[in-house]
Amino acid sequence: MSRFWSPIVHRLTPYIPGEQPKIPNLIKLNTNESPYGPSPRALQAIRDAAQDTLRLYPDPQAQDLKNVLADYCGLTADHLFVGNGSDEVLALAFQALLKQQQPLLFPDITYSFYPVYCQLYEVEYRQIPLTQDFSINPDDYNQPNGGIIFPNPNAPTGKALPLNAIRKLLENNPNSVVLVDEAYVDFGTESALTLIPEFPNLLVTQTFSKSWALAGLRVGFAAGHPDLIEALNRVKDSFNSYPLDRLALAGAIAAVQDADHMRASCRKVMDSREALSQALTQLGFEVLPSGANFVFARHPAHEGAWLAQQLRERALLVRHFNKPRIDAFLRITLGTPEQNQALITALQEILENS
Amino acid sequence: MSRFWSPIVHRLTPYIPGEQPKIPNLIKLNTNESPYGPSPRALQAIRDAAQDTLRLYPDPQAQDLKNVLADYCGLTADHLFVGNGSDEVLALAFQALLKQQQPLLFPDITYSFYPVYCQLYEVEYRQIPLTQDFSINPDDYNQPNGGIIFPNPNAPTGKALPLNAIRKLLENNPNSVVLVDEAYVDFGTESALTLIPEFPNLLVTQTFSKSWALAGLRVGFAAGHPDLIEALNRVKDSFNSYPLDRLALAGAIAAVQDADHMRASCRKVMDSREALSQALTQLGFEVLPSGANFVFARHPAHEGAWLAQQLRERALLVRHFNKPRIDAFLRITLGTPEQNQALITALQEILENS
Repeated sequence: MSRFWSPIVHRLTPYIPGEQPKIPNLIKLNTNESPYGPSPRALQAIRDAAQDTLRLYPDPQAQDLKNVLADYCGLTADHLFVGNGSDEVLALAFQALLKQQQPLLFPDITYSFYPVYCQLYEVEYRQIPLTQDFSINPDDYNQPNGGIIFPNPNAPTGKALPLNAIRKLLENNPNSVVLVDEAYVDFGTESALTLIPEFPNLLVTQTFSKSWALAGLRVGFAAGHPDLIEALNRVKDSFNSYPLDRLALAGAIAAVQDADHMRASCRKVMDSREALSQALTQLGFEVLPSGANFVFARHPAHEGAWLAQQLRERALLVRHFNKPRIDAFLRITLGTPEQNQALITALQEILENS
Repeated sequence: MSRFWSPIVHRLTPYIPGEQPKIPNLIKLNTNESPYGPSPRALQAIRDAAQDTLRLYPDPQAQDLKNVLADYCGLTADHLFVGNGSDEVLALAFQALLKQQQPLLFPDITYSFYPVYCQLYEVEYRQIPLTQDFSINPDDYNQPNGGIIFPNPNAPTGKALPLNAIRKLLENNPNSVVLVDEAYVDFGTESALTLIPEFPNLLVTQTFSKSWALAGLRVGFAAGHPDLIEALNRVKDSFNSYPLDRLALAGAIAAVQDADHMRASCRKVMDSREALSQALTQLGFEVLPSGANFVFARHPAHEGAWLAQQLRERALLVRHFNKPRIDAFLRITLGTPEQNQALITALQEILENS
C-alpha cells in the first residue's frame, strides 16, 4: 500500500501464473507448455533476425505476420490482430469490446485471468455455473449481457463445446461480442474460425504458447470482423505501438509457414492424452474428457492439494486450483510419453503408500 | 464505429508513430533509432536463446534482467520494473500511479503519447507551456496536481533539464509521483537515477530503443522506490504476466553486460550532433541545444512541412509535427556522419533552388 498508488491499484488481486521454479530434473507438467520443441524453421528465422537491424523498430502493424495468419485462418488480413501473447490480446479485448453497460458473462470455472481483467478495467461480470458434469450450457447465457467469453476447450477442465453450441450462443446473442478463447483448440477441438464470416459479433483468440511450442516467444492473435479488429487496434495504438519485437515476428511467421510441424506435435500430444487418461482411470481417478494438452482429474479418496504436494516432493509439478468445485482436481499438462509414465509411476507409489 | 465497441474506444485518438516505409535507399532520420548496431554480445545471446527452450514460458519476473539493471543503475533489484518497451512501462505507470483526483501535469510540447495514455485511462491532465525558449520551468508546476511527467531531455525539443531543477520539482511536489522519462538520457544528459534513494516519489524510465540500439527488441524499464514498483507489478500482473519474451530477456541482459558498447555509440552520436548542429546553423537554421540523439531545428524562411516534403522526395525522412508552436521545426535523428552529410547536401540544394 502506498499513498502514491492510483485508486484502482488497491483493489487489484493480480493473476498468479503457474510457477517457473528452478528445481533440478524437474518434470514440469503445470503450465501447459508443449513437450516438443518449436519448428526448426522458426528457430532459424529468429537466428537470422538477430542482426544489426534490431536497432530499427519493428513493423507496428505486423503486416507480414497478419498476412500468413490470414492464409492459415482462411480469412483476409483485416480480420487479424496480433499481440504480445494471447493474454495481451485478451486484455485489450476486455478494454476495447467487453466493457459495456451490461455485465460480461463467463463460466464459474474457467481461465482465472478473466476476473482479473474485469477488476483492472472495471468490467462488471456474472459467472455462469457450469453444469454438473462441468459443461457449458448455451441456454444458461440467455440473459441480458454486454459480452460472453469462454475458452474452448475450457480451462482448466479441458472440456470442449461443439461448434453447433457456439453457433447457438452467437445466434442468441446478436448484440454482444462472443469471445471464444481457443488457446488449446489445436489439440482436437473444432475451431470457431469458420463461423467468422457469418457472425460480426464473434472474436476468436489463439496463442503460439501451446500447440506452436513458442510460449517463450509471446505471440497471440485474434480473428474477427474488421470492426472488432479496429477496436483492438485503436486501444493497442493508444497503449503500445510495437507490441511484437522483430524476433517474435520472424519466429511466428516461420512457424505458421511450417504448420505441419505444429500439427505433428499436436498429434503426438493427443495420442499420449489417450494413454495417460486410461492409466489415470486405472489408478482410480475420474478424468474429464479433454480436448486440450492437459487432463483434469480427481481421485475419490485423496485431496487434490495433497496429491499435488506429494508429486512436488518427487520433482513432478502439476497444477492445483484451490477453488470451490474443482479443489479435488489436478490439472496435468501432457508431457512426453516418458514424463507421463514418470507421473503414473509416482502416483502409483503415492496411492500405495497412503 | 461499431455498436460492439466499448464506449471508451469511440473517444480514442491513437498515437501515430513515425513511419516505417519501404522506400529503397531511404535515409531514415525520423524515429530516433541508433545509426550503429547493438552489442555483438547481445546478438550472440539472442542466437543462443533461439532453441528448444522457447517452448517454455519466460520468467514472468524477469529477475535476471532486473539484477543486471540494478547493478547498472546502482540500485537493488526491487527498485526495478521491466516492460515491453518503455511505451508499455509508461502506459502501466499512467494506470498505476498517475491516475489521481488532481490533474496530471506535463509540458505543452512533449512526447505526444502522454495525452493518448490520458485518454485511454481517463486521466485528467493539464499542459504547462514551455517557456519562450522551449524550456521547462519547475516553478510553473507549483499548482495542485496528481503527478508530473516529462521527458528529460524533452522530446521533440531535445532540451535537457538540469538535475537541480528536477530536485526542485521533487521537493516542491512531495505528494505527487514525478516521472522522468529518460528515453534519450544517455546522449549527454544527467540522469535522475541518482536521486531515487532520496525521493520516494520519483520514477525514472529508460528504454533500450535508442542508446542501446535495440528498438527492434522492445525492452524498457522503470526505476524507483519499491512501493512505486509494486504498483507497476500489480497492474502488469493483472494485464500480462509475461511481457518480455526469452529472446528479449537474453538480448537485454547481454547488452547491459556490455554497456561500454552502448557508451561508445553514444559518444559517436554526440560528436556528430555537434557537427550537424553547426552545419545546420550555417544553412540559416535555428537549432535548439540538444541533449538527445536528434536535433530540433527551424528555418526562418521555410515551413517545416515543406522542408520535410522536399527531403522526402530525396529519400530522406525526418519528422515534422503539425502542432502549434513547433510546426516550423524539423526533428532530425542523428545518423552516421555520411547520412548527416547527405542531409546537409540535400538541404543546401533545397534552399538554393527555392
